[in-house]
Amino acid sequence: MILLHHLRIGRSIFTVWQLEELAIDYELKVYHRHPETFRAPDDLRLAHPLGKSPVIEDGGLVLSESGAITSYLLEKFDTENQFSPARSDLVAWGEFTQWLHYPEGSVFAPLLIKMLQMRSGQAHEALEKFSSNEIKLHFQHIAEKLDDREFILGGRFSAADFGITYVISLAKRLGQLDDYPSLEAYLGRNLSRPAYVRALERGVE
Amino acid sequence: MILLHHLRIGRSIFTVWQLEELAIDYELKVYHRHPETFRAPDDLRLAHPLGKSPVIEDGGLVLSESGAITSYLLEKFDTENQFSPARSDLVAWGEFTQWLHYPEGSVFAPLLIKMLQMRSGQAHEALEKFSSNEIKLHFQHIAEKLDDREFILGGRFSAADFGITYVISLAKRLGQLDDYPSLEAYLGRNLSRPAYVRALERGVE
Repeated sequence: MILLHHLRIGRSIFTVWQLEELAIDYELKVYHRHPETFRAPDDLRLAHPLGKSPVIEDGGLVLSESGAITSYLLEKFDTENQFSPARSDLVAWGEFTQWLHYPEGSVFAPLLIKMLQMRSGQAHEALEKFSSNEIKLHFQHIAEKLDDREFILGGRFSAADFGITYVISLAKRLGQLDDYPSLEAYLGRNLSRPAYVRALERGVE
Repeated sequence: MILLHHLRIGRSIFTVWQLEELAIDYELKVYHRHPETFRAPDDLRLAHPLGKSPVIEDGGLVLSESGAITSYLLEKFDTENQFSPARSDLVAWGEFTQWLHYPEGSVFAPLLIKMLQMRSGQAHEALEKFSSNEIKLHFQHIAEKLDDREFILGGRFSAADFGITYVISLAKRLGQLDDYPSLEAYLGRNLSRPAYVRALERGVE
């Protein structure tokens, strides 16, 4: 059975959601952040040397990186391609794969910089300029893609929506979503899916 | 034929290297950074709305994200699994996929923060602490993995080494590699591969 090392609060709720969408049997091992420093507890390092979450275990395999976990779960459990294009359609699969890498590969870093500055209460001119410009670039790009689409690949929800939903939800937490009502609507659409509601019931006590 | 939009100087030389390792026919369209601001030229946006590099085109498909480009090239051209485990070996393939996501998904952000601070000449206490701690965490992790391995997956070079080589080379440029002689050695091993030497000949005029 899949075991998910699940750190409250953080991105691993999005992995719980995936497990629910894929209707996989799974166990959660829950970790709590330090109430003051907000840091992950040290015992997460027993699960994976980097001490980050999400991490899944499947038999002897221990896997980190959200996008890699998504790919692994699809490969093992989504054998009928409900959540991603078949690889035989190489163009559609390539585009899917691009959207799978994009949230962590491009969108997360400027949000992280914004978050670290906000938390510290100290601004930094060059970093502030960089993060604001990049956040604008990426969320405009996502909004343009979603202009005539219900989900990031088109009319059908796919596993590429997990990561996009994650970075949009993080942007919302950081107060960066005011100019993007269509992204708010997309977020609401995804977070009201029955599988996400079940994820909250199991993953957020 | 694959067309690579190749920005000098940046990470797309690592995509040229991949094309050379895979012995694929390709064309390069070369872009130059502004000599003073070091910014990418606006005409990169004609290739892809984000205006970043690398971007490849293959027929009508336009693909960004280094890791996604790697996956696409493997899927189309590495049909005999010279550069990645076969998906039928799901554990090995899962680990490979984790290492494929890891450079951009986890290692790049703290290096970027370090670079932006260095370029600006202005430090920021919280960001400096974050980037230094994370750089140490990740490069110790990579060094531990490479302790008894020639390449990141073991004795054989794989496509997971492209991204790991990229972040190590960036760390070196930022002066962050002094404590890691084994990573220097790994970098030298990879950058002396004939395919990388050919990439430099075509990609760096």
